[in-house]
Amino acid sequence: MPVKERMKEMEIIKGGVTAAKGFQAAAAAAGIKYEGRTDMAIVYSKKPCKTAGTFTSNVVKAAPVKWDRAKVESGVKSQAVIINSGIANACTGPEGYDVCRKTAKKAAEVLKIDKDAVLVGSTGVIGMQIPMEKLKAGIEKLAENLGEDAEHGNQAAKAIMTTDTVEKEAAACIEIGGKKVTIGGMAKGSGMIHPNMCTMLAFVTTDAVISKKALRRALHSDVQDTFNMISVDGDTSTNDTLLLLANGMAGNEKIRYGTPEYEQFLEALHYVNETLAKKMAGDGEGATALFEAKIVGAGTKEQAKKLAKSIICSNLTKTAVAGHDANWGRILCAMGYSGAKFDPEKVDLYLESRAGKIKLVQDGTALDYSEEKATEILSQPEVTATADIKEGTEKAAAWGCDLTHGYIDINADYRS
Amino acid sequence: MPVKERMKEMEIIKGGVTAAKGFQAAAAAAGIKYEGRTDMAIVYSKKPCKTAGTFTSNVVKAAPVKWDRAKVESGVKSQAVIINSGIANACTGPEGYDVCRKTAKKAAEVLKIDKDAVLVGSTGVIGMQIPMEKLKAGIEKLAENLGEDAEHGNQAAKAIMTTDTVEKEAAACIEIGGKKVTIGGMAKGSGMIHPNMCTMLAFVTTDAVISKKALRRALHSDVQDTFNMISVDGDTSTNDTLLLLANGMAGNEKIRYGTPEYEQFLEALHYVNETLAKKMAGDGEGATALFEAKIVGAGTKEQAKKLAKSIICSNLTKTAVAGHDANWGRILCAMGYSGAKFDPEKVDLYLESRAGKIKLVQDGTALDYSEEKATEILSQPEVTATADIKEGTEKAAAWGCDLTHGYIDINADYRS
Repeated sequence: MPVKERMKEMEIIKGGVTAAKGFQAAAAAAGIKYEGRTDMAIVYSKKPCKTAGTFTSNVVKAAPVKWDRAKVESGVKSQAVIINSGIANACTGPEGYDVCRKTAKKAAEVLKIDKDAVLVGSTGVIGMQIPMEKLKAGIEKLAENLGEDAEHGNQAAKAIMTTDTVEKEAAACIEIGGKKVTIGGMAKGSGMIHPNMCTMLAFVTTDAVISKKALRRALHSDVQDTFNMISVDGDTSTNDTLLLLANGMAGNEKIRYGTPEYEQFLEALHYVNETLAKKMAGDGEGATALFEAKIVGAGTKEQAKKLAKSIICSNLTKTAVAGHDANWGRILCAMGYSGAKFDPEKVDLYLESRAGKIKLVQDGTALDYSEEKATEILSQPEVTATADIKEGTEKAAAWGCDLTHGYIDINADYRS
Repeated sequence: MPVKERMKEMEIIKGGVTAAKGFQAAAAAAGIKYEGRTDMAIVYSKKPCKTAGTFTSNVVKAAPVKWDRAKVESGVKSQAVIINSGIANACTGPEGYDVCRKTAKKAAEVLKIDKDAVLVGSTGVIGMQIPMEKLKAGIEKLAENLGEDAEHGNQAAKAIMTTDTVEKEAAACIEIGGKKVTIGGMAKGSGMIHPNMCTMLAFVTTDAVISKKALRRALHSDVQDTFNMISVDGDTSTNDTLLLLANGMAGNEKIRYGTPEYEQFLEALHYVNETLAKKMAGDGEGATALFEAKIVGAGTKEQAKKLAKSIICSNLTKTAVAGHDANWGRILCAMGYSGAKFDPEKVDLYLESRAGKIKLVQDGTALDYSEEKATEILSQPEVTATADIKEGTEKAAAWGCDLTHGYIDINADYRS
């Protein structure tokens, strides 16, 4: 046996926000906006959690974003997150911030925890005030409904949906020093999705024992390659929030930044984040396909990311995917205005899905490919466009969706 | 009578690219892409013209952009512009550039002018090669059809349309030292419109006698407030070209940079550019409304421009306009991610159209306005949202359009 035991591989498991030890969740129908469905959720930990978070870069920040950021930056441990999916609580002034304070106070009373340990999340209409009595009644129901099985996590994932068509969950576990460490999460889209330093609403939990520095570094570095690489409509929300809660109940030896165990943790976190991010992109408002753009052969990572993101953000590439039309000129055009430098006359371009792979462009000009095959490839639920810019060895991926009539239907009349 | 005679006011006149003295135009059906319609146009001047131009900032530049830019930068005078609206001649490699050379050679022969005096413009599908024989036959027809009346200008404006629903022309005249000086132009949209340092295709002609410096400065400064402030879909084209040709046939005393006459010229040029730009935005693919965003009370012009442009670029504000829904939170959200700093809690927001004007937001939070009135205002063909950010006295405007099912219809199946 070698001196250092071979690390066990990460295992992808079922479940979401309750997958890690000691985490519970619940949903409730509080009638804040929707009737006949749940619209509030809670994530609760039996023990207080070290917490890392990233938040919207939008100048217009919703009250819950201001609240959570202040808590996370203060370093105070958190134990519960109260989420509603009816009203965003953005552009609501001092009254809106007071709603966060009252939410924390009420939840602390009901759950018998410190009020500084309560975080809040909101998504929905901008500009309306949340009816406080409904919210308070919802918090009581959430506390009554708490449970730690996968079903409770799934109910919470459903309750935070707005225009989403499916709930979004992911979980994975690793083994550290003989102890099983689990990471699980849930997220919601599906419009106003163009995260910048964070995402719409995503909540990830872990039972890992991990240093505060390692937890923060892991979240902030991984978000750059996952949530920050998706876009549905180019609109960076006022409410984007990603929280990572670690309650330490796995009992592993503490994970420290820069160690092999940190790399293991990062791999599992990356899986959960990337999976949630891709689910969000693929379930973009009105979407019929997940559209992935890959850049390979780049000189720098930054260049590859700019080019990939520009492709999946273009309304014209997105409508071409919706129409199953291999209009590759639009992809080159979007690369061209990305702000990244490259030589258009060196670009090779491929389209790929489970229906096959074809090369459309060689050195910047069209090949004599089969339009029929291209259309077949583009008719699948997951489509990848890969551009090789032949400058180096760096690469990046970004995820978006097609732009369809469904997006117009949803957004021309979302409020009413 | 005062020492300096009072300047006569600018007069808005009918007409387009043939409004100025000595300019002729024509259209021809060359069958390059479309059947049963004209798809080529020419703008011709009896005398060689000083020429200024601005071109796309996209890294992927169409062959005609490369051709025209080289000519304009060399300072050589131009006398004809040959335009086709079937194939963009972008991503076509050396063969594509050779098409420009052959176009110039053919036009020079037919028109008996210097081949260095021929500029070219293309718009349409990216990646296909232009059938040279059809193009040559088209050039012959164009030369035969030349005429200098408004009808010929109008035919040219129609021939350069792709997904445009109406032709776009504007003209104005001023008087300088007793001589009438005219500026007229034509432009086409209506998708892949998000100009950066220029616009899609626009051709402006003037008979002014003007120094080369004044001509260039006028174009480059005015384009920042006109064509660069519109967007249809956020996609900066590979072909964006704006040319300004001055043949000097008005016989006025030469206009020099920085003089009162220069300001007069700039006023008329601004009218023509702004009118064409707004027509382009209002006729965006699938659009039912011109959507104007105004920022007032800004600290700097740059800040005002960023905020205004972010509003009209947002898919979510655009779908809200399509749905006649006063979802003002999306406007504040778009301002928030524009990259410009401002205090959201100082913002007042107004909606205005010919149906009236209402105030929706005071100091960043909602007023109790009439949703019915807001919907009536938003149901007009021209809608303005004005945000007062109460920091200073600078202001800016930007123009876009609503995002409708029509955009999806057009672009999910544009190529075929």
